[in-house]
Amino acid sequence: MTFWKILWQKKINISINQHKNSEYDYQNDIIIQDFNYKNDKVPIFLSKNKRIDLYELEQLCDTVGWVRRPLKKVKTAIEHSFLTVSLFYKNNNQTKMIAFARATSDNTFNATIWDVVVHPEFQRKGLGKILIKEVITELRYSDINTITLFADPQVINFYKNLGFIPDPDGIKGMFWYPN
Amino acid sequence: MTFWKILWQKKINISINQHKNSEYDYQNDIIIQDFNYKNDKVPIFLSKNKRIDLYELEQLCDTVGWVRRPLKKVKTAIEHSFLTVSLFYKNNNQTKMIAFARATSDNTFNATIWDVVVHPEFQRKGLGKILIKEVITELRYSDINTITLFADPQVINFYKNLGFIPDPDGIKGMFWYPN
Repeated sequence: MTFWKILWQKKINISINQHKNSEYDYQNDIIIQDFNYKNDKVPIFLSKNKRIDLYELEQLCDTVGWVRRPLKKVKTAIEHSFLTVSLFYKNNNQTKMIAFARATSDNTFNATIWDVVVHPEFQRKGLGKILIKEVITELRYSDINTITLFADPQVINFYKNLGFIPDPDGIKGMFWYPN
Repeated sequence: MTFWKILWQKKINISINQHKNSEYDYQNDIIIQDFNYKNDKVPIFLSKNKRIDLYELEQLCDTVGWVRRPLKKVKTAIEHSFLTVSLFYKNNNQTKMIAFARATSDNTFNATIWDVVVHPEFQRKGLGKILIKEVITELRYSDINTITLFADPQVINFYKNLGFIPDPDGIKGMFWYPN
């Protein structure tokens, strides 16, 4: 076999393996074995894999009324996020994304959490807490000490309960938008 | 010349050119020709190059009383920032960094500005405004619409004058620190 053929074959093998991992790795991290859902018990999985079904993510965002975003931009945002955390449930061999969060970071000092979403049917059951705690754990594992976010009024208390402080020392979150 | 030799020579040339650009490109962007400084007139340069003298940056941060940071972490933070903007002045062939800002981003939706610093001897002369306006211009050029930051109380009005809005729609900036 020639050099190029060997290289090509290796490349294909790597792709296949990566795909396999990305498609199934979240099944390894069961966070709740028997979650009560529609008179049934379903397992909930957690994944930090960035290979996300973008349609499924945007469908999840639809359920909480977010404005639709171009999938190309969503893809870019995920690729350039430091971290994504997704929750899934599995029922009758069907897997469904039910929660998501991501964080941007300089990889060492600061991180900012964006796009936190939990499917309405799965809210108020502790999954949001699990999601954000996992984000914090992962960021702390990378020795990132300042974790920030911008909270809508209705979720300020949720984040307070997780240890987030609004406006510490009078520091003010500020936004610039195009006119 | 063999294939590998040609490749190697190209690589060396690229390295040399990159180094040349990184070391001198900021001299091309004069933003103020005759800036009054200590009874002299000096030119002020702007650079978006990430190859920054880390010692000089930390010396600049010293002048505004910031806590010293491990240079290795500063290097990582700059490498993983979407953008850095630095201002320099030049006098008698000596170049000195006098202002700096950087932004993290997901490269498409959101960005957060960090580490904004202007040397005390150069403050209140419009350089901070030039710095942040350049950050905004660059982020907008990449179609990033939501530009955020966390402002200390004494600079909230400075950012308001640049079009930043504190707590829009009751959105609250929140921080999590390790205990």
